[in-house]
Amino acid sequence: MDCSVTPLRHGGLSLVQTTDFFYPLVEDPYMMGRIACANVLSDLYAMGITECDNMLMLLSVSQRMSEKERERVMPLMVRGFRDAAEEGGTSVTGGQTVINPWIIIGGVATVVCQPNDFIMPDNAVPGDVLVLTKPLGTQVAVNAHQWLDMPDKWNKIKLVVSKEEVEMAYQEAMFNMAMLNRTAAGLMHTFNAHAATDITGFGILGHAQNLARRQHNEVAFVIHNLPIIAKMAAVSKACGVLFGLLQGTSAETSGGLLICLPREQAARFCAEIKSPRYGEGHQAWIIGIVEKGNRSARIIDKPRIIEVAPRGAACSQDSNTNPSPEIQPPLS
Amino acid sequence: MDCSVTPLRHGGLSLVQTTDFFYPLVEDPYMMGRIACANVLSDLYAMGITECDNMLMLLSVSQRMSEKERERVMPLMVRGFRDAAEEGGTSVTGGQTVINPWIIIGGVATVVCQPNDFIMPDNAVPGDVLVLTKPLGTQVAVNAHQWLDMPDKWNKIKLVVSKEEVEMAYQEAMFNMAMLNRTAAGLMHTFNAHAATDITGFGILGHAQNLARRQHNEVAFVIHNLPIIAKMAAVSKACGVLFGLLQGTSAETSGGLLICLPREQAARFCAEIKSPRYGEGHQAWIIGIVEKGNRSARIIDKPRIIEVAPRGAACSQDSNTNPSPEIQPPLS
Repeated sequence: MDCSVTPLRHGGLSLVQTTDFFYPLVEDPYMMGRIACANVLSDLYAMGITECDNMLMLLSVSQRMSEKERERVMPLMVRGFRDAAEEGGTSVTGGQTVINPWIIIGGVATVVCQPNDFIMPDNAVPGDVLVLTKPLGTQVAVNAHQWLDMPDKWNKIKLVVSKEEVEMAYQEAMFNMAMLNRTAAGLMHTFNAHAATDITGFGILGHAQNLARRQHNEVAFVIHNLPIIAKMAAVSKACGVLFGLLQGTSAETSGGLLICLPREQAARFCAEIKSPRYGEGHQAWIIGIVEKGNRSARIIDKPRIIEVAPRGAACSQDSNTNPSPEIQPPLS
Repeated sequence: MDCSVTPLRHGGLSLVQTTDFFYPLVEDPYMMGRIACANVLSDLYAMGITECDNMLMLLSVSQRMSEKERERVMPLMVRGFRDAAEEGGTSVTGGQTVINPWIIIGGVATVVCQPNDFIMPDNAVPGDVLVLTKPLGTQVAVNAHQWLDMPDKWNKIKLVVSKEEVEMAYQEAMFNMAMLNRTAAGLMHTFNAHAATDITGFGILGHAQNLARRQHNEVAFVIHNLPIIAKMAAVSKACGVLFGLLQGTSAETSGGLLICLPREQAARFCAEIKSPRYGEGHQAWIIGIVEKGNRSARIIDKPRIIEVAPRGAACSQDSNTNPSPEIQPPLS
């Protein structure tokens, strides 16, 4: 499961917790802080939990940064993390900071809640449909953006994408990664979601398989449509087997929720999430169906690629602050 | 404070949480796991909390380890962490593992409790005395032990300590770091403790100062006695200003609790903690007094050094497993 759920000794309450930490993948420290926080909270949101009682921050400062870089970069990252926590209706009350070769940012999210506050991710039934709340392709966009300054790499993809398109895709990826899945978590209750998970390191297919495996009923998930940040499908294809975006195995960071919804509710979910009352930028797509099966998940041959057009540059507090790229871990 | 305390929306309950992660400092991976867990839980124990509802583990595997080293070392470390959690009456239900240049081990400890389950560390009064529940000198012992194989360093201390004494001190340090402060936490309630903290990176003086600063009453802490692992005072002195053990500034890992107790209760606390009903190895010393003052702490000139004799080798699951020493971060 995305969270650990521990029954408490007190009045039917449960402790729901999650932790996540990783390394910077965008150049803007403020946005990186927001992304890290959105990524931690996303595990709660995947269980339909909209409130978080407390956050702790996990941080390491790189020993390879100069004093000046530290003073410039780290407070922005912490600020981004705290701002996203506040947007999630919670706050950061503690944590731990160490020195390390690489920068680390992450956190712990904890909530004490009643049984009806969360949706156990195991009740999908045949006839449900699958909804995804953010486009795929964040890792492809982040890497393509790094390649703008690496001619060897850039040459591999320059025939299928322009520099401007890569810039737009990168901004779109950053915006999506920094967006909280909180609205989607709330709508899971409104529209009677049967199960959900969030899309991160294992890609859409890996997480769909994990979710399918956990179901009470004998179901299988079949994915027909892949909403992908514009041009990133072409970039992934041009790179051969490196990403596997069209195969559903490309890692995402702070991806959307994959939600099993009753068929009649799914379209209403997708319409509702775009409502201005939830702020800008929310989208959702019906991407597949739940049928009878052996608790597996697959993508059909030749899925429909939905090219998700950028909605403009993401908000950024200080887009000119670039920490040294060499302190980022290499793409594995 | 050692923990974050968050009032919950449910029936007067509070969420108490702490997180800690750091780098290996002993060669035995199993004991390192135990130490990391004891170190995380210690922050709860410092607030007189004896139960923990849930733990998460934070782990990184070093990219410089071979596959064989990983397979040999990491499961032992995880096992040590889990065993210590079990000894603390709790269990590890989740966490996060990443790849990093250095090994990281740490965790998150969380409990939901009622107001009388914890002791806010701010009620010291003049006339209280200070009790310490583990001897000091863990960092000195760990470093002296590393120097056994570094002739340049060893030459600095060989006139004041023998190799056997360093081995004994290292075992004693390891045993103490791996010991839970849980018994002490329970006895804080029995003997009406007024405040406490645990001794870690800032040394006995640093943590005493932090604790003094937080007090409601105008008090000062005066430390007269320093219980120190045998021979480590001499080693620290021989190293000049490197450690500052006698000045109270030498870092400790997973140190003891520093507890303010009413004078008439302190001796009984120290007698009780040695009772066989709590298992082997617990000790405590009265090390100072609480007087009227400006919320500060100090060590008297020429404090009495209590040489704490080793009690024999610590239990170790596999003392022959040595991870490569170069993956440990350098002593700063």
